[in-house]
Amino acid sequence: MLQLFGTSGIRGSLDKITPQLFMRLGLSLATFLGNEGEVVVASDARTSSEALKNALSSGLMSGGCAVADLGLVPLPAFAYITRERKSKAGVIVTGSHNPPQDNGLKCYDGRGMEYTPREEEVLEGWIFNEKYKPVDWKKVGNRSHVANAVEEYVEAVLRQILKVKREIKVLVDCANGTASNVTPIILSKLGCKVFTINSSVDGTFPGRPPEPSPENLTNTCRLVREIRADIGIAHDGDADRLAVIDDRGRYVTNDSVLAFFAKLLLERYGGGHVVTSIDTSFRIDEVVEKVGGTLERTRLGKTHVVLKEKPNAKIILCCEPWKIIDTHWGYWGDPIYATAQLVELLDDSKCSTSELFKEIPNYPQQRIYHPCSDSLKQPTIALIQQKLSEEKGVASIWTYDGIRVNYEDNSWVLIRPSGTEPKIRIYCEGVTRKRLNQLAKQSISLVKTAINKAEKQRS
Amino acid sequence: MLQLFGTSGIRGSLDKITPQLFMRLGLSLATFLGNEGEVVVASDARTSSEALKNALSSGLMSGGCAVADLGLVPLPAFAYITRERKSKAGVIVTGSHNPPQDNGLKCYDGRGMEYTPREEEVLEGWIFNEKYKPVDWKKVGNRSHVANAVEEYVEAVLRQILKVKREIKVLVDCANGTASNVTPIILSKLGCKVFTINSSVDGTFPGRPPEPSPENLTNTCRLVREIRADIGIAHDGDADRLAVIDDRGRYVTNDSVLAFFAKLLLERYGGGHVVTSIDTSFRIDEVVEKVGGTLERTRLGKTHVVLKEKPNAKIILCCEPWKIIDTHWGYWGDPIYATAQLVELLDDSKCSTSELFKEIPNYPQQRIYHPCSDSLKQPTIALIQQKLSEEKGVASIWTYDGIRVNYEDNSWVLIRPSGTEPKIRIYCEGVTRKRLNQLAKQSISLVKTAINKAEKQRS
Amino acid sequence: MLQLFGTSGIRGSLDKITPQLFMRLGLSLATFLGNEGEVVVASDARTSSEALKNALSSGLMSGGCAVADLGLVPLPAFAYITRERKSKAGVIVTGSHNPPQDNGLKCYDGRGMEYTPREEEVLEGWIFNEKYKPVDWKKVGNRSHVANAVEEYVEAVLRQILKVKREIKVLVDCANGTASNVTPIILSKLGCKVFTINSSVDGTFPGRPPEPSPENLTNTCRLVREIRADIGIAHDGDADRLAVIDDRGRYVTNDSVLAFFAKLLLERYGGGHVVTSIDTSFRIDEVVEKVGGTLERTRLGKTHVVLKEKPNAKIILCCEPWKIIDTHWGYWGDPIYATAQLVELLDDSKCSTSELFKEIPNYPQQRIYHPCSDSLKQPTIALIQQKLSEEKGVASIWTYDGIRVNYEDNSWVLIRPSGTEPKIRIYCEGVTRKRLNQLAKQSISLVKTAINKAEKQRS
Amino acid sequence: MLQLFGTSGIRGSLDKITPQLFMRLGLSLATFLGNEGEVVVASDARTSSEALKNALSSGLMSGGCAVADLGLVPLPAFAYITRERKSKAGVIVTGSHNPPQDNGLKCYDGRGMEYTPREEEVLEGWIFNEKYKPVDWKKVGNRSHVANAVEEYVEAVLRQILKVKREIKVLVDCANGTASNVTPIILSKLGCKVFTINSSVDGTFPGRPPEPSPENLTNTCRLVREIRADIGIAHDGDADRLAVIDDRGRYVTNDSVLAFFAKLLLERYGGGHVVTSIDTSFRIDEVVEKVGGTLERTRLGKTHVVLKEKPNAKIILCCEPWKIIDTHWGYWGDPIYATAQLVELLDDSKCSTSELFKEIPNYPQQRIYHPCSDSLKQPTIALIQQKLSEEKGVASIWTYDGIRVNYEDNSWVLIRPSGTEPKIRIYCEGVTRKRLNQLAKQSISLVKTAINKAEKQRS
Repeated sequence: MLQLFGTSGIRGSLDKITPQLFMRLGLSLATFLGNEGEVVVASDARTSSEALKNALSSGLMSGGCAVADLGLVPLPAFAYITRERKSKAGVIVTGSHNPPQDNGLKCYDGRGMEYTPREEEVLEGWIFNEKYKPVDWKKVGNRSHVANAVEEYVEAVLRQILKVKREIKVLVDCANGTASNVTPIILSKLGCKVFTINSSVDGTFPGRPPEPSPENLTNTCRLVREIRADIGIAHDGDADRLAVIDDRGRYVTNDSVLAFFAKLLLERYGGGHVVTSIDTSFRIDEVVEKVGGTLERTRLGKTHVVLKEKPNAKIILCCEPWKIIDTHWGYWGDPIYATAQLVELLDDSKCSTSELFKEIPNYPQQRIYHPCSDSLKQPTIALIQQKLSEEKGVASIWTYDGIRVNYEDNSWVLIRPSGTEPKIRIYCEGVTRKRLNQLAKQSISLVKTAINKAEKQRS
Repeated sequence: MLQLFGTSGIRGSLDKITPQLFMRLGLSLATFLGNEGEVVVASDARTSSEALKNALSSGLMSGGCAVADLGLVPLPAFAYITRERKSKAGVIVTGSHNPPQDNGLKCYDGRGMEYTPREEEVLEGWIFNEKYKPVDWKKVGNRSHVANAVEEYVEAVLRQILKVKREIKVLVDCANGTASNVTPIILSKLGCKVFTINSSVDGTFPGRPPEPSPENLTNTCRLVREIRADIGIAHDGDADRLAVIDDRGRYVTNDSVLAFFAKLLLERYGGGHVVTSIDTSFRIDEVVEKVGGTLERTRLGKTHVVLKEKPNAKIILCCEPWKIIDTHWGYWGDPIYATAQLVELLDDSKCSTSELFKEIPNYPQQRIYHPCSDSLKQPTIALIQQKLSEEKGVASIWTYDGIRVNYEDNSWVLIRPSGTEPKIRIYCEGVTRKRLNQLAKQSISLVKTAINKAEKQRS
Repeated sequence: MLQLFGTSGIRGSLDKITPQLFMRLGLSLATFLGNEGEVVVASDARTSSEALKNALSSGLMSGGCAVADLGLVPLPAFAYITRERKSKAGVIVTGSHNPPQDNGLKCYDGRGMEYTPREEEVLEGWIFNEKYKPVDWKKVGNRSHVANAVEEYVEAVLRQILKVKREIKVLVDCANGTASNVTPIILSKLGCKVFTINSSVDGTFPGRPPEPSPENLTNTCRLVREIRADIGIAHDGDADRLAVIDDRGRYVTNDSVLAFFAKLLLERYGGGHVVTSIDTSFRIDEVVEKVGGTLERTRLGKTHVVLKEKPNAKIILCCEPWKIIDTHWGYWGDPIYATAQLVELLDDSKCSTSELFKEIPNYPQQRIYHPCSDSLKQPTIALIQQKLSEEKGVASIWTYDGIRVNYEDNSWVLIRPSGTEPKIRIYCEGVTRKRLNQLAKQSISLVKTAINKAEKQRS
Repeated sequence: MLQLFGTSGIRGSLDKITPQLFMRLGLSLATFLGNEGEVVVASDARTSSEALKNALSSGLMSGGCAVADLGLVPLPAFAYITRERKSKAGVIVTGSHNPPQDNGLKCYDGRGMEYTPREEEVLEGWIFNEKYKPVDWKKVGNRSHVANAVEEYVEAVLRQILKVKREIKVLVDCANGTASNVTPIILSKLGCKVFTINSSVDGTFPGRPPEPSPENLTNTCRLVREIRADIGIAHDGDADRLAVIDDRGRYVTNDSVLAFFAKLLLERYGGGHVVTSIDTSFRIDEVVEKVGGTLERTRLGKTHVVLKEKPNAKIILCCEPWKIIDTHWGYWGDPIYATAQLVELLDDSKCSTSELFKEIPNYPQQRIYHPCSDSLKQPTIALIQQKLSEEKGVASIWTYDGIRVNYEDNSWVLIRPSGTEPKIRIYCEGVTRKRLNQLAKQSISLVKTAINKAEKQRS
């Protein structure tokens, strides 16, 4: 069980994310890598990032690794350069979409792929047993600064994407994050008419909270409408997330964005294999089937692991909430590259963003959190599973990451214990709003009953 | 009579603005400076600017001057650094607000003040007689790159301006010029909510023609309204111009912007002397008188010359169309610094931009061009002057740059032969629209009559 | 009593000098400085220096200080830039003349003066009580890289020193330290004919051990003779030491170098006050008296403290073993600047290095170490002091740092307990070799007797 | 017939080598390259180099080529980077071994090979007909600065060469040229004990004239002896020449250096084809035959042309006076790489430099210049050829670049009209000194007679 690493790297407030921890982490990673070779480091613009990166670098060097520092770059540029330099690994200091007072990091291998839980587990082992050791004075690593990392990434993206032929107005909202100097420039060079908001780099995130959720983008959505933009694009602090707003100022649900890219890539490559997580919408199944691809589901936050485990599976896309890994481009989620592809398609399709997304079915969803003490989580889930297996109209039940029951009408419910809080999480998707309401009601009742039963069993 | 230099530096298409010319210019300037000392060079983002800057630099070095290259910076940052480095002179390669296929340059002295016609004349002398000579091999100048020029300028501005305390929404339109990385960042750091359009650096000016005229800013004005910004700010390609759009999306006339800064500075410093050009509005007279300052008029394009000629005149502001020289800050027109001051005042005043400018009187103006062959210009103007001197209701007549007749009701007409085209230019300002129409009609008639008379006299 | 800081900063093997310690040090120093302001950092070329500097920087930033990183520079350039930038403090990661497997650091105040024991004591307090605390996320310091630090220092030195007019052949031995790119270039630009050995930067010190002792410079001395150089110059790893070799290949004793600079500066400035340490030669007294200056002695390693304590004392020079602080230039020992001055004088004097140093008296000296357990040190020293005070022919006795007895014939003996080893140190200087031998013999006997007596008293 | 380009590029005093010429050259080269693509530029340290490089760059950019500027680098590093970047061409501004008041340039193709006469001819065509034209404003090239060019080159060399195992003392004399920061560092990193003289970069060449001729290296040879170095290495200003001094301080003739590398490479690669010029020693034939290679002679200054003409010839070495092209490494003469190979072999062979070169036969040579007016050169040479063809003991006569007659005893005489002066040049090599004297005497007589006869024939 991982203690430091969560769904995506390590993250938290500065009480937890200290220079001391990052130095230990650097030493541990160096030991994990055999106390030699190059590690790329980079950071987002948070006020604490440079201090933490220095601690991390010191640990890496003391552990025998050379450090190649990219400076302030968005996550996709960092992953791209890590791969291009053929480095052994890459670490980016970033709090992602957390509030500005937090920070954290994410580890990537030499191909630009985020570390798998297995790798993170081994790394944590080194951190906790503190058996890492500094290398002999002769083998301490050196440090070099890599200039032009962003420029190289921008050029690489531009080499792949066609210039737009019609006028496309794009509103870009970079959350004052590290994409501020990247996404607007790429879109401008592609020939778009670019408007920006929150797009000067500022680690205090003065414009809006960095998470590109519908709540945080109300203003941005309104702006899209007001200026009659063809599309709105929003990132988080390190640009590992992409939110899309259509030309009518409506926030496109993340599941629809995923389904859209599944369609785009399957059409482009004439089919292929898609990996998604257990919590994504049935619309992905529908789209993949329609275009003639194959779909595989796996645990949340770990779609990229399948890439490592099944190197011959012809996977063209790994997608899960907020992550789009287009394997022809790279093994990292790349919202900037995805934006460029989206704009290219918009231009080519000659239709509007809302028309483009009209082809993606849009089923209503609901997320519910129900309180449940940690000790009751397991028995409750067991009881729920038993109960659900007896239900009628059930097409299938998946149990590898919580329980997801798929009904014959393509509605579904996912019930998972929260990993961080005393809660049971319920995700519902209904083919109609009415069906959704019914499922939500029924699921809450199911969970309540199971908790009560579990409590009784225990006492 | 100057052949290369116009109202502001040298400018034109690449047929005229060649690397060969710029090399000769570099050699001439070096000779003018005594074949030693440092010259700062910089450029805007036009596609031809770097090539021209290299030619210029080569000439300067061959002529014995050391070259300190700032790279791509907005004009005010260039002038600021020239002064701070205590260089002998500064040259910026820029086509200013001309279309992207043009280019040019502007010369500044060691205090950051644009060269006067007298200095330009001496420099042209060297260029045309080609008597400049390369220095001995031992004295050829070297070249250094100045990093962080923009950062130093930004910090200097921020040291002078207070952070805003209320939320001020600003739309910035940088014409894809060199202020794209400067004005939005300064405003953001001052605490404004910044929106941008046309603000990634691109020397082809894909967003709009670089001149910030009302016609080129229709779209930007509409945007200010649409997004309900508190103020809109627009620059040209090298950020030596500032256009202001009020919170209702209305383009503020340049004369009102000038009067506004006269008021602002006179109030701040408790009076002082203001220099303006012959073609600016009576509203400047009114504002200056009201706040208790003194006003002086001079030839168009040359208000800064008075600074050199009258060093003890306590001049606090030189202003003429598109140029605001706040002498407490520096001897160059600085639209970026002016923007910061404007935002600071907006915050402090607690009122809206339109309310702020309501205090500046706004008389209607009209500009008329009447055809007139070059040979007839002088006799025509002489005849007009004679005729006007006989008119009634005339308060005063100025004749140092065309003829401006000021009426007792504060309306005025300026009649000038064009310096570049076969035309007579007529500027009218009336205290009412009706009065303006009458003056315009009467002036056209006056010009026509004079031309006819001049023609007859000649034949 | 200081635990980490020794005679000059902190130093030791990597067992003791860890990234963890340096991070704590950074945090402590930041706290000491009030958790704000800029600190300059730099390092020598040791393999572990960059890793340690990153740890130190991380601590400083986490503690609220901005870090300005100079990179790899010799100590005098670092001190010079610290002063020029008006920083709050400067820290250089350096093992000075220790072997390559060691490392350490030295702290300087904003004037480029090394921290005094009092300052070091307060700093150690913070380190040991660990009460320093990281600042709030908003106040974490940032980091900037300072380009051209060495170039600025070189130019500053060259502005002070006249070019040589005759051919002066100099052999420079930089111990492969950070002066490798500095001292040879300055001498070359001054017009000297420069030969180098061990002058490519290499932190493993392949050429010779970095301490410029006579033993380590045998080869360099021979080279001076072989190539008939006019003078030989040798540094240690961070160029805070200067050894001089005369034109006959003879190592000039450090005391004579100090006396030489006392003479040079007193003559230049027409007198003044000189501060030296208790362990330097009588030849300094002689020289100072002859040229008409005044001399003051203080504790070893702390001559610069007098500068802080007596700001009005017109001190022109602080000198002690291996340190020459020329206060007209700066408040740090500067062997590079001293080299330039030496060469300038050599040129001006029209005589050879050996003739130049002939004017400095050269009395024979001897250093003896006698074993003595730590607990016996204090009583032994007390007994010695008592005994010496009864001796005949004694001119004076100084007791502020060990006991130094000065005889009427100007010979002297200094007896000090070692600060780091179970030893008593005896320094003798005799006006003749015979007198020296007699003093050495007599001192050993004195120490032995005192130890015996102390041992008996205890039991 | 080439007018600007000589044996190696363009060279001359600043009367001839002007910024205007270099701008035209840049425009012409860009036109020659099709007005697009990247050109690498670099320069030596002469005072006029930066000014000339700016003019050249301006021309290249105006002609549509992007400029990648390496700054100040030795020629081999420039050629290496040109190849590695896959640029279209490279131009280095350098006066090579000419005096400091001169300058010039050399052109290289995208493989790092110097332009052939054919290419230079086409380029001169463009320069003289001035039909080159600046490109449209949209296509003007941009300019980028390439950091770390030297570091990349140094690392590439070090990857090929083994570290030395025994102590090898090397004296390096870089003529204050651009190798000053390169050759000593490479040797030091290879483990040699490095001494330097004239090794701080200074374009005024204060140490010695940059040509590494025996006369200019007398002092350096003496130094090698004095410090008992194992080998001495000397370069010219841009490090395209290598002079070797053996451990006894003796200047190794250039022909022996060439023969040495022929031997080294033929042994390493087990044979191969060697190209040399008409004026090199018979010792090369002897060595090549002994080791089992094949030898081909061609015109002076153009051995690299054969590489282009015979791509399948398995050429392992092109060598001619002062140029060693090791084709396994690159297509440019690389004295720095050659130095590293020499030191590697010296270490491996366990013998001294003088022993190493003892294996190369060393026949005495003489060079004689005889006055001859330009108009008489051709008839004189014709008469000499006729006369020589009648001589006895002649093994062969070569006539493709002057006339070289090879005698049966392996002695030879080469008679060529000078390309730049009113002289006939006579090169003689004898198998003994006596034979040499006889050949010299006889050749002078032959030339004199022929001139007289030619004179008579004309009148």
